[in-house]
Amino acid sequence: MKVNGIPYRSIWLGSDGRNVQIIDQTRLPHDFPVVDLTTMDEAAVAIRDMWVRGAPLIGATAAYGMALQMADDPSDAALAHAYDVLHATRPTAINLRWALDDMRGLLAPLAPSDRAEAAYARAAEICDEDVEINRRIGEHGVALIEAIAARKSGPVNILTHCNAGWLATVDWGTATSPIYQAVERGIDVHVWVDETRPRNQGAHLTSWEMASHGIPHHLIVDNAGGHLMQRGQVDLCIVGTDRTTAQGDVCNKIGTYLKALAAQDNGVPFYVALPSPTIDWRVRDGVAEIPIEERGGDEVTRIWGRDDTGQVRQVQISPDATPGANPAFDVTPARLVTGLITERGIAPASAEGLAAMFPEHAAAAAE
Amino acid sequence: MKVNGIPYRSIWLGSDGRNVQIIDQTRLPHDFPVVDLTTMDEAAVAIRDMWVRGAPLIGATAAYGMALQMADDPSDAALAHAYDVLHATRPTAINLRWALDDMRGLLAPLAPSDRAEAAYARAAEICDEDVEINRRIGEHGVALIEAIAARKSGPVNILTHCNAGWLATVDWGTATSPIYQAVERGIDVHVWVDETRPRNQGAHLTSWEMASHGIPHHLIVDNAGGHLMQRGQVDLCIVGTDRTTAQGDVCNKIGTYLKALAAQDNGVPFYVALPSPTIDWRVRDGVAEIPIEERGGDEVTRIWGRDDTGQVRQVQISPDATPGANPAFDVTPARLVTGLITERGIAPASAEGLAAMFPEHAAAAAE
Repeated sequence: MKVNGIPYRSIWLGSDGRNVQIIDQTRLPHDFPVVDLTTMDEAAVAIRDMWVRGAPLIGATAAYGMALQMADDPSDAALAHAYDVLHATRPTAINLRWALDDMRGLLAPLAPSDRAEAAYARAAEICDEDVEINRRIGEHGVALIEAIAARKSGPVNILTHCNAGWLATVDWGTATSPIYQAVERGIDVHVWVDETRPRNQGAHLTSWEMASHGIPHHLIVDNAGGHLMQRGQVDLCIVGTDRTTAQGDVCNKIGTYLKALAAQDNGVPFYVALPSPTIDWRVRDGVAEIPIEERGGDEVTRIWGRDDTGQVRQVQISPDATPGANPAFDVTPARLVTGLITERGIAPASAEGLAAMFPEHAAAAAE
Repeated sequence: MKVNGIPYRSIWLGSDGRNVQIIDQTRLPHDFPVVDLTTMDEAAVAIRDMWVRGAPLIGATAAYGMALQMADDPSDAALAHAYDVLHATRPTAINLRWALDDMRGLLAPLAPSDRAEAAYARAAEICDEDVEINRRIGEHGVALIEAIAARKSGPVNILTHCNAGWLATVDWGTATSPIYQAVERGIDVHVWVDETRPRNQGAHLTSWEMASHGIPHHLIVDNAGGHLMQRGQVDLCIVGTDRTTAQGDVCNKIGTYLKALAAQDNGVPFYVALPSPTIDWRVRDGVAEIPIEERGGDEVTRIWGRDDTGQVRQVQISPDATPGANPAFDVTPARLVTGLITERGIAPASAEGLAAMFPEHAAAAAE
């Protein structure tokens, strides 16, 4: 999407046709540094240190990491080495594993001299496929926004949590794709951006996306959404998901569940946007079955920001003797989810709804 | 309550029997400055600049402000002047007005030479009355904690939002009073402290209270409570309230409503602790009738904390082009409230429940 009028993706091939460029997202929103990845090892650092984040973008970066390795050294040993180094960066990321397996499967049978070209072509394809999936998610989701716009005056108010934006994918984002497409269609939208403590992805990334693309928005604390819904100031919630179960339970950033409860209590539609690969067909009951990552308490007690001298630094908000507790995700039960916006269409958040939309996966999982 | 083993109130008469001492709460939790109030004007500054906050403590400080004025100049003109200056500090605070009316009603008929002594005596009485109300709230509330402790092993996990602690009253606090009394009775408790964005009263004040008194606790982001309840890690919620309607709707710090929804969804009891003067008998439907204060967006986009050099400063978390929106309170409908813990006992959160507990007020309001 756009940054001050110029269209960007979150990863792209440099003009030399070899190096890869990304945005160091750890420095958003206070700085906008475009970084050159010139080697596989640099790609690994970018993933490991979270310069890039979001499952689709991690996968795309890993694919280009393999391509960089093949450009340097297309031997079997280098291929195996790149796979191992890249895989170790974020071991739990599903798309990372998928992209690496895909690349290795393609490259291993080829003669070393053919590998670099094939690797770059496939990495570009992986990026384009992600863009296309997200574009389709937006195409299905924008219909919801259009329908609301048709029956009310003034902007359609959309609340989102965390960052399921173009920065987390290659372009469009998932939860934000319907919003960007609504803007393209000239629909008047306004976005409530949850700051999303503790890591503040809403304040740092989603706000920056909205501001950079020129979409009207306000940053709100995570506490505010329920009140706004009570007062009729939210027409629609759209969030992303890290993992969706076969019965439609949604594991997403901590706090998503609270917004879903408020949406239900106030009759506000609550949608989750997802590419179908994030559906985990082996898991049914998300609350009972999904283990939740506990992160360090420092993320709660210390906050990053830019001080009045322009320096980006951390400040501690609590007494030294107070420990933080930091569950990173929560599970929103399917009963609170109005629908799942996928690249194929909007599915009811239920085992039946998902099985009807993705019969081939449901059948495979049932075996 | 205690600070490193030493019992404190939030306001007390100095050893000279004239000056009044308070804690500059704006500097908690990183510093613990006890401040001398030597004149009425200093008391007014302490209220206006929020060195003291919380309705009961504001009332007590105003009462002592009147006493300081009488010690300096007990004339009719000075009495009227003190009333006006103190009243203008926080015009919407109900206890402020009540305390000033009470003091003026007592002092005006007296000979000027008798006013100072009477003013100090009455200010001390107002403080003691507040302590006694909160002690009784705790006595009723601790029974809930005792009952839970009796049927489970391990600590009773209590979640609270914002600061309805001893710092907001003269002592004990409202929501925290049952917790302090549980500790006095040797019950094993653990407190989940919501940080309470945007102003972080949980991180700044409640955490400090818990750490200073030596009560096991963790600071959590406001997003986390729903997940903790889903996983059975919260036995009881207790919060305070700024205003309670005659039918039991609760207006409290933004985000309270979300926790009440999660409590209901998970069968966790959700109690509100309040001194009966915060019941507004003229208002019934809180969502429809209570106007919600919109505060500056800077409170959302900028956060106070202590940097690694020890300096307390603000940092900005969002892009310059992103505005913040900042509703300060929300209304939790009575249907989500398990009970109202008052100085007379625990009332059902309903018109009938409150009328039965406070028949004299309900009758007066019905006239």
